[in-house]
Amino acid sequence: MSLMLEEIRQQPDVLARILQQERGKIRELGETLRKRSIRLIVLVARGSSDNAAQFGRYLLEIATGIPVSLAAPSVYTLYGAKLRLDHALVVGVSQSGEGEDINRVLIEARACGAFTVGITNEAGSSMVSSVDVPLLIHGERERSVAATKTFTGQMMIFYLLAEALAGTSAVTQGFERVPEFCARTLAHEAAIRELAERYTFMENCVVLGRGLLYGNAYELALKLMETCYVVAERFSTADFFHGPLAMVERHFPVILFASPGAMLPGVKTLAHRLKELRAETVVITSDAELAAICSRVVPMAPEISEFLAPIPYIIPGQLFAALLAEAKGLDPDTPRSLSKVTRTL
Amino acid sequence: MSLMLEEIRQQPDVLARILQQERGKIRELGETLRKRSIRLIVLVARGSSDNAAQFGRYLLEIATGIPVSLAAPSVYTLYGAKLRLDHALVVGVSQSGEGEDINRVLIEARACGAFTVGITNEAGSSMVSSVDVPLLIHGERERSVAATKTFTGQMMIFYLLAEALAGTSAVTQGFERVPEFCARTLAHEAAIRELAERYTFMENCVVLGRGLLYGNAYELALKLMETCYVVAERFSTADFFHGPLAMVERHFPVILFASPGAMLPGVKTLAHRLKELRAETVVITSDAELAAICSRVVPMAPEISEFLAPIPYIIPGQLFAALLAEAKGLDPDTPRSLSKVTRTL
Repeated sequence: MSLMLEEIRQQPDVLARILQQERGKIRELGETLRKRSIRLIVLVARGSSDNAAQFGRYLLEIATGIPVSLAAPSVYTLYGAKLRLDHALVVGVSQSGEGEDINRVLIEARACGAFTVGITNEAGSSMVSSVDVPLLIHGERERSVAATKTFTGQMMIFYLLAEALAGTSAVTQGFERVPEFCARTLAHEAAIRELAERYTFMENCVVLGRGLLYGNAYELALKLMETCYVVAERFSTADFFHGPLAMVERHFPVILFASPGAMLPGVKTLAHRLKELRAETVVITSDAELAAICSRVVPMAPEISEFLAPIPYIIPGQLFAALLAEAKGLDPDTPRSLSKVTRTL
Repeated sequence: MSLMLEEIRQQPDVLARILQQERGKIRELGETLRKRSIRLIVLVARGSSDNAAQFGRYLLEIATGIPVSLAAPSVYTLYGAKLRLDHALVVGVSQSGEGEDINRVLIEARACGAFTVGITNEAGSSMVSSVDVPLLIHGERERSVAATKTFTGQMMIFYLLAEALAGTSAVTQGFERVPEFCARTLAHEAAIRELAERYTFMENCVVLGRGLLYGNAYELALKLMETCYVVAERFSTADFFHGPLAMVERHFPVILFASPGAMLPGVKTLAHRLKELRAETVVITSDAELAAICSRVVPMAPEISEFLAPIPYIIPGQLFAALLAEAKGLDPDTPRSLSKVTRTL
C-alpha cells in the first residue's frame, strides 16, 4: 500500500486531534486579534497549502466580514515592496514550515506592522520561530510527497480561526462532526478503486469547484498532476464559462465538486451543458438530480451540509488520485522530479 | 484575416488613445482617493479581465504599498457576505461592462462603504452606471470573442492608476513608451507564424510567468484554450516547482515569459531543469543566455525593462494563439461553445 493511501486513512484521527489540541489556543488567539481590531487578513502559501488557503479565504470572509487577500510572495521577496499592514493578520501556511519564501513574507509582514500566525505540521520548523503565534496540525510526519492529511488539517485550522474570530455562526456550526464525515467517506475506497480503473489512460482533464469548494478543485488537479502526471486544469465553474469551456469535446473528462447549497444551481446548469457536449463527467455530490445528469458519481452523505462539505468532499479526490496512480503503475509517494520540501524565493 | 489578428494590430493605437484621453481624469481620481485614505484595493473580474487584474495586483502593491485583494465574486453574490470595506477602493474590470456578477459585487461593495471604479470598453454599459468613477479603454468595439486590445487596454489603465496613487515611481517610469514597444513587437508577426506551424499538433502545454508577468501566463493559456482548444496549464514559475513539474516529460511544451529583472534568475534555474527533462521550451525574452538554454525563442527588444514588459510581452503570445488557431484550421473569432458576453452569477 502507498504511504499516500495510508495517510489518507489517518485523516479522521488527525482532524479529531486538531480539534482537541488547538481549539483552546485558537480561541485565546481570537481574543488577542479582536483587541487589535484586524481589518485585513492576508494568507500566504504555495502548492497544496495554497489550496487550503483558497478555502480559508472563502470561509474567513463569509464568517468574519473581514476582507482576505491571498498574498503574492514575490511582491515581498523579489520586488521588495513594503506594504501597509497595520491592523492586518498575516497567516502563513506550510506543511513543512520550511518554505523559505513563505517565511520571508511572514518576517517582512511583521516588520510592516502585521500580527503573524503560522499553520504547520512541524513544531520544530523555521515557521514556528518566525511568527507571533504558531498553530499546529498534529498530523505526525507526512511521509508521502503528495500532501493529504496536512491539507485537510490546514483546512480544519481555518474552521477554528473562523470560529475564534466570529464566534459560532452558520459557517462553522457543527464542524466537530467533520472527522466522522471523513471516516464515513473513507468507506468509499473500494468503489473509487473500481472507478479509477476506467481512467487509467486519461491524459487530460478539468476539475471544477466553486466557492468553498474552489480550493478542492485546485487540490485534486494538483494531486492528479503530481501523482498521475495527468494534465489537469482547474477552474471555478463560473470562470470555466469564460473561455476554457471551448476545450471540451466528446469524452473530455470533467470532474465536478458539488455540495448542497448556493453553488448547486450553477453546477447543474454546467452539467447540462457538458452533457450536450457529450463530455465525460464525474461528480462528487449528494444531489440525486445532478448525479443523474453526469456520467459517473461518487455519492456523498446528504447530511454533509454546504459549510461542512469541503474537508469530506476532498477525500474521494485524494483516493481517486492515489488509486489512479496505482492503476497507471506509478508510485504516488515519489513523483518524478519532486521532493518533499520545495525551496523557492 | 481573423478579427483577432486585426484587433491585435490595433493595440498601439488603442494604448496611445488611453494615455491621451484618460490620464488627466485618472490623476484627478488619484486626488479623490488620497483624500479618502485608501487602505485596501479589491479587484474584481473574470476571464481575460481577471488576468489583467492579476497584473494590476502586482503593479499596485509594488507602486503604492497598499495591499490588494482579488475578489471572490461568489462571497458577495451567492454567500451574501457583507464585508467591511470602509477605506477600500474596489475596481471592477470587464470588457463589455455587462458581467452581471462583477456589477453586483461593485454595487454591494459600494453599499459596504467602498469607493468603486469600473474599467470597461463600453461607455454605455451597466458597469458605467454602477460605479463612482468609470474608466474607459477607448478601444472601439471588440468583435473577436478572444479579447486582445481590451486586455492590454485594461493593463494600461492600471499603469495610470498606479501613477495617480503613487506619483511617478520606478514602477511606472517611462510607460508612455509602451505603445511604441508594442508596435515594434508586432513586427515579429511573420516569425511567429512560422514558429506556430511547429505546434500545429500540440494538444497540451504549460505557460509560466511570475510577478508582473504572472497575468501574462494566465492570459496566454486562456487564449490557447479558447482559440486553439489546447489544454494549456498556467502557473507561476515558483508554484510550478510545487507539484506540476512532475507532469513534464520529453517533448512536453512549456512556454516561458521572462523579462529582465528580479524574476530572471528563477526562470533560468527552471529552464535548466526543463532542459535536463528534455522538455520543449519556448521563451519570450530579451536575455541571450536564457534564449540559449531554450528550444525556441521570441526575441524581445532589450530596452523593454522589467516594469514596462507586461504589455509588449503579451503581444507575441496573442499572435501565437491567433496564428496557431489558423495553423490548426480553427477560427479564433468564434470559439465553439462561447459567446462574447458571459453571464454568470
